[in-house]
Amino acid sequence: MKHDFCISTEKKVCFMDMTASIAQLIKQSKIKNGMCFVYIPHTTCAVTINENADPDVRSDIIKHLNKIVPQDGNYMHAEGNSAAHIKSSMLGFSASIPVWRNALTLGTWQGIYLCEFDGPRQRKIIINVIKDDK
Amino acid sequence: MKHDFCISTEKKVCFMDMTASIAQLIKQSKIKNGMCFVYIPHTTCAVTINENADPDVRSDIIKHLNKIVPQDGNYMHAEGNSAAHIKSSMLGFSASIPVWRNALTLGTWQGIYLCEFDGPRQRKIIINVIKDDK
Amino acid sequence: MKHDFCISTEKKVCFMDMTASIAQLIKQSKIKNGMCFVYIPHTTCAVTINENADPDVRSDIIKHLNKIVPQDGNYMHAEGNSAAHIKSSMLGFSASIPVWRNALTLGTWQGIYLCEFDGPRQRKIIINVIKDDK
Repeated sequence: MKHDFCISTEKKVCFMDMTASIAQLIKQSKIKNGMCFVYIPHTTCAVTINENADPDVRSDIIKHLNKIVPQDGNYMHAEGNSAAHIKSSMLGFSASIPVWRNALTLGTWQGIYLCEFDGPRQRKIIINVIKDDK
Repeated sequence: MKHDFCISTEKKVCFMDMTASIAQLIKQSKIKNGMCFVYIPHTTCAVTINENADPDVRSDIIKHLNKIVPQDGNYMHAEGNSAAHIKSSMLGFSASIPVWRNALTLGTWQGIYLCEFDGPRQRKIIINVIKDDK
Repeated sequence: MKHDFCISTEKKVCFMDMTASIAQLIKQSKIKNGMCFVYIPHTTCAVTINENADPDVRSDIIKHLNKIVPQDGNYMHAEGNSAAHIKSSMLGFSASIPVWRNALTLGTWQGIYLCEFDGPRQRKIIINVIKDDK
């Protein structure tokens, strides 16, 4: 089962919660057991999983990544968004989550986030669910 | 084939070798060809693959990540474990390894490690193996 | 469908474009819909996805990773390539890309790169494509 959806990100750098949207797609798919793949077809945003409770965790991740990969480093790429490209490769463009009894096997504190590093923009997310027949 | 197991991590920050446990699950599954997915349902530990020979490699990875993401940064999250959240997102919560002739296609020097960044704790690992029918 | 191929990397640290090779394997597989997994069975090189247009983006990623993880840090591993091990774990050893209508669902600006951090060497890449039957 493949499904695409779009998110309009709100800031230059921000994490957007996609957990509810993806959980709903799993429910609608009626797939009982298998794997859910979240894929980001962009090069300046990424996907990660992290704490869904205290929003300070996301702020700390964003702030610290900005520190490790500063916006104004000594970069060559003329578009000025090399930091976004670097941070995206560090977090990655896909998440792979088991599906069990028609639900994601996320931990209690886990949420799935689109990590915008060069927004605000409209971003596409591709969800692919592969059924396990056994 | 889905299977969960638990690991009691031994220190605040440490890498625990899961290779033998996962290799055994593959063997027991009798699945010949497909994909093995390792999933971590937590937000302050991660999974990585790296050298299984010299333990200094793991020590160097741990030490350097602590340098890049210091335990006592200027973080807002009140629980004091933001460094663990950040390092977990950097390494990631899943590993995807092909299965061929009922075995993981790990390279000669590759081992699969649970990366504890906020232990010691009991951690759950979810293994999902999807068969390739062709 | 599993297929291996080799790449001879050209420098100590470089990104090698694998997009065309993987796209061709998908075409040959005749698999319409499913998932493509790229797996690196090594510990000092990785795989990432990033911009395929301006080569300065890859140069900026390489240069900045070398800054965050310097070649000559205070490492213990006697082989002298700890930086390569650390950078490989940061970018990761697999990429998971949906396949739709017998093609990778890469974004317009996305290419798939082998990230050599301890070359030049011959490297093996494992491609596994799992069909989605539904």
